[in-house]
Amino acid sequence: MKKNQKIQKEIDSVSKNKFLTKRVVAPKLEKVLYKSFKALDHGFVRVIDYMGNDSSIVQAARVSYGKGTKQLNQDKSLINYLLSHRHSTPFEMNEIKFHVKLPIFVARQWIRHRTANVNEYSARYSILENEFYIPNPKELKPQSKTNNQGRSGDLDENEKKMYMKVLRENSKDSFEKYNFLLNQDDDEVNHKRQGLTRELSRIVLPLNSYTQWYWKIDLHNFMHFLALRFDEHAQYEIRVYAEIMINIMKKWVPLTYEAFLKNRLDSLVLSSEAIEFIKNKLHGKSNKETKISKREIDELKKIFSF
Amino acid sequence: MKKNQKIQKEIDSVSKNKFLTKRVVAPKLEKVLYKSFKALDHGFVRVIDYMGNDSSIVQAARVSYGKGTKQLNQDKSLINYLLSHRHSTPFEMNEIKFHVKLPIFVARQWIRHRTANVNEYSARYSILENEFYIPNPKELKPQSKTNNQGRSGDLDENEKKMYMKVLRENSKDSFEKYNFLLNQDDDEVNHKRQGLTRELSRIVLPLNSYTQWYWKIDLHNFMHFLALRFDEHAQYEIRVYAEIMINIMKKWVPLTYEAFLKNRLDSLVLSSEAIEFIKNKLHGKSNKETKISKREIDELKKIFSF
Amino acid sequence: MKKNQKIQKEIDSVSKNKFLTKRVVAPKLEKVLYKSFKALDHGFVRVIDYMGNDSSIVQAARVSYGKGTKQLNQDKSLINYLLSHRHSTPFEMNEIKFHVKLPIFVARQWIRHRTANVNEYSARYSILENEFYIPNPKELKPQSKTNNQGRSGDLDENEKKMYMKVLRENSKDSFEKYNFLLNQDDDEVNHKRQGLTRELSRIVLPLNSYTQWYWKIDLHNFMHFLALRFDEHAQYEIRVYAEIMINIMKKWVPLTYEAFLKNRLDSLVLSSEAIEFIKNKLHGKSNKETKISKREIDELKKIFSF
Amino acid sequence: MKKNQKIQKEIDSVSKNKFLTKRVVAPKLEKVLYKSFKALDHGFVRVIDYMGNDSSIVQAARVSYGKGTKQLNQDKSLINYLLSHRHSTPFEMNEIKFHVKLPIFVARQWIRHRTANVNEYSARYSILENEFYIPNPKELKPQSKTNNQGRSGDLDENEKKMYMKVLRENSKDSFEKYNFLLNQDDDEVNHKRQGLTRELSRIVLPLNSYTQWYWKIDLHNFMHFLALRFDEHAQYEIRVYAEIMINIMKKWVPLTYEAFLKNRLDSLVLSSEAIEFIKNKLHGKSNKETKISKREIDELKKIFSF
Repeated sequence: MKKNQKIQKEIDSVSKNKFLTKRVVAPKLEKVLYKSFKALDHGFVRVIDYMGNDSSIVQAARVSYGKGTKQLNQDKSLINYLLSHRHSTPFEMNEIKFHVKLPIFVARQWIRHRTANVNEYSARYSILENEFYIPNPKELKPQSKTNNQGRSGDLDENEKKMYMKVLRENSKDSFEKYNFLLNQDDDEVNHKRQGLTRELSRIVLPLNSYTQWYWKIDLHNFMHFLALRFDEHAQYEIRVYAEIMINIMKKWVPLTYEAFLKNRLDSLVLSSEAIEFIKNKLHGKSNKETKISKREIDELKKIFSF
Repeated sequence: MKKNQKIQKEIDSVSKNKFLTKRVVAPKLEKVLYKSFKALDHGFVRVIDYMGNDSSIVQAARVSYGKGTKQLNQDKSLINYLLSHRHSTPFEMNEIKFHVKLPIFVARQWIRHRTANVNEYSARYSILENEFYIPNPKELKPQSKTNNQGRSGDLDENEKKMYMKVLRENSKDSFEKYNFLLNQDDDEVNHKRQGLTRELSRIVLPLNSYTQWYWKIDLHNFMHFLALRFDEHAQYEIRVYAEIMINIMKKWVPLTYEAFLKNRLDSLVLSSEAIEFIKNKLHGKSNKETKISKREIDELKKIFSF
Repeated sequence: MKKNQKIQKEIDSVSKNKFLTKRVVAPKLEKVLYKSFKALDHGFVRVIDYMGNDSSIVQAARVSYGKGTKQLNQDKSLINYLLSHRHSTPFEMNEIKFHVKLPIFVARQWIRHRTANVNEYSARYSILENEFYIPNPKELKPQSKTNNQGRSGDLDENEKKMYMKVLRENSKDSFEKYNFLLNQDDDEVNHKRQGLTRELSRIVLPLNSYTQWYWKIDLHNFMHFLALRFDEHAQYEIRVYAEIMINIMKKWVPLTYEAFLKNRLDSLVLSSEAIEFIKNKLHGKSNKETKISKREIDELKKIFSF
Repeated sequence: MKKNQKIQKEIDSVSKNKFLTKRVVAPKLEKVLYKSFKALDHGFVRVIDYMGNDSSIVQAARVSYGKGTKQLNQDKSLINYLLSHRHSTPFEMNEIKFHVKLPIFVARQWIRHRTANVNEYSARYSILENEFYIPNPKELKPQSKTNNQGRSGDLDENEKKMYMKVLRENSKDSFEKYNFLLNQDDDEVNHKRQGLTRELSRIVLPLNSYTQWYWKIDLHNFMHFLALRFDEHAQYEIRVYAEIMINIMKKWVPLTYEAFLKNRLDSLVLSSEAIEFIKNKLHGKSNKETKISKREIDELKKIFSF
């Protein structure tokens, strides 16, 4: 606890200072720099540092094209062009660094994005705190019948109560065992035993324990992360973080954010078979002979409301 | 259990077959292909596929140099030269793919090597088995006094017994809760309740639960992984895996293995201050004015026995 | 020249041998292993090694899902699912290694794909041969009026002749100067001068000089490379290589190849505005208020023929 | 020319402005931000943006260790510890972005560092300027007798004159041909011919043509780049750039710079055989039986002066 407070204090002291810089700035992001956005029950996301803004992307692209400065409208249109044509390198020129506190099972999904840089709190060096992710009861759902990796439908209230109780007890029990192994339960008078090393004591902790890390990523890979982790197939608990970060992205690079929604988050990839299918629809032709899968037709129906 | 057995069966059926190939082969590695090497109590390492052998490294280097084939002796000496001069690209031309079963806390250290490719068993899709890493009692040690991230010294037998009991109970309790949440405890007749979705049920599982993955890496990055994870500062449980894999490396690329021991595993980096220190020693001069740290002197004393 | 011939001989000698392996094989690819496919006037592409086939992708995916073997039909459908849902990790489990000879200006575009491994012939170590890319006259075209980075339209025959002459002369002149600097023009009797170092002599060589390299990439990144470099916006000279490699991909992983055409090469990304536009079309509504760009409408018109 | 001037003007206008930021700053680097450091005859290096300073590295490391702020001395010592123990992740938390103008043959070596981000001026879009790297006569040397990839020794003055003439002529001739192909030689009255497309015209340009790019890299990989490119085996022309950048690094992260010199640039790796050799030397024992190579002994002799 004390250690976290120290880190917090240090960050706060920094965040009061302002410095002069010749670097480009992102004014709306500056306003929330170091600010902690709450996520789940004990987690948070905060921006620690960043490099570049929308204009840096435009400038990097224009080195390639050998062109000079243009008006805002043209910047917007260039960014849209770059994103829709998958010119990724100009977006790699911007970086953002977060401090994130998150449950370990979320961290295990998150870390699969290998193009980021990470410094994680080490439970070999330090002792974890008594903080566990306990889902909000409304998030407790049964296994989805159709989606092998998701949840949907409802549990009844008794079931929810039972499950909440199990989740809470498991966290409490595990943490007591962790403390016992470490020999940290100080009230036990006169005991003389030695504790077990930290790197082994921690193995009793459950996957809903909280960890924290510094996480830095460039804008291109950040958008890839957001697209995958804000997707409806992503687990709810990581989507909570993705949503916060999308809002942070909006403050950082508003033009890119807009292009990202239009060309990525809210876009649709049509397979060659789906193209044929839509083409037939448009021309009033039959789709009897198209080889498109039922799954893809269902998706098209939903999106185009036919 | 059934699923694991299926995968095993499938692998075994493949491993009986032999095919003709024009690709280069690594004869000693072929002999242990698909073979499972036991690690810790329930884990294993097995090689699933590989690409290249020592000759591929030599061949890649010689494209750069525009030189033709040489004798074995020259191959050995070229590989030694490449490794000692940190010419990494020829070693990147070889790949190896493993199937590994390992505790989650080990997987969390392992995954930090971002230059590998991974497919992990997903507890969102599938149910984890009742398998937990329970350390051998002789591995239970107190926190090291000098090494903030290690263990050293001894616990007394009573302490060990207590701690073993806690580790076992925690695993057992957590797995029962996991099963209860999933509603998998089938003997409970007539119950009608719905289970909790897999992606949330799993969060009660402790960090000593076993997971498994396919893990593929090129030889250059593999050596980097081995150097870090076979190091004495690495946690014992991951060193067990690194040791098995070093032996596999020996079967795969024996010349590179030898050069790797000589120039990496058993090598020493001298700082500019340590160079000065050794130079003075060799010339019988005083080291009073060298700025070398006490920590580095101690290390030099140990290695050079003075 | 001699050096190249040596490398060729060495490869040929290897390619006659066949070995027994327990690894999975790609039978159609084995047939063309080491075979040189001609590209442009002096270039080539040949496969030197590979790891995995379609079944390796399926197997890697099934580790994640914890599922056993399925029939071919299900493999095909799983691969299609993985590709269309951008599950990239199973495709990263396969690797392919090429030996490529290509003009330097093509190599400069190619190398921008950073996720591959490369060993290039070094003109600091060795002397480049008298081989330059001289375009086929039918490829000589004026700058495109609409595409800032392309060619289109026609030159007249006189212009072509002039330009061919300039291209040929420049190559010849530069190579003579290169040889003069290196002091390689042996017929000049009795001269005593020293040549200039190779690493400086080469700087007179033009961008249409040929170089060669070993290039290794995983299947996921290979598809990304192919999608970008087979695109109509890519320069003709690199597209020639991409086309050869797409045909090689077909021999290596036929099921993935099919899914790649359907979901990537011949697919279409609709922006949120294009979705709205098509939806209106399908429902007979006006598109007056959609904010879609003229450029995107033109693209849709072409694809859907309205 | 006009385009370059435009870019320059734009950068200058930015560089006059100062903004308030809550981010950490590197005061000495701020002073030279956007400033162009001349390299070779027409090249330059300038810093366009950066993220983090020495304190960011310390902060990232302390997240791992869960420790609070320390004094400067301790920061210095921590950075030294991190660097000497190859803890690379805290250094990955800082980024720097350069605008570099450099000859194409240098760019071809530079780009092999795949861990950086690049946006290069495209000769498909734009026309290259009449700027070529012409070495200073004192850099003209013969091929080294001992180093297959280097130069050493001296040419006589007549040879130098001849070679300078060839280098200048080749650049001039090629540029004239480039202009002719593009049909840019405007003084030729009344001509009606069409030029050849830019993407083909450029292939007559030699490897000493200048290109430019934006190049961004994290501090860990930057140090790797500097260690390789400032090495005496690197080609002189790229070492000129590395030297400028090492001085920039000193302004950016002075504590890391110091640790980098001590533990990397001026360090020495001893193989297991070299350790044995030195140990015998220190204890006055014979080295007859050590298997150390002559090359390594020679290196040790030079460094330890025995």
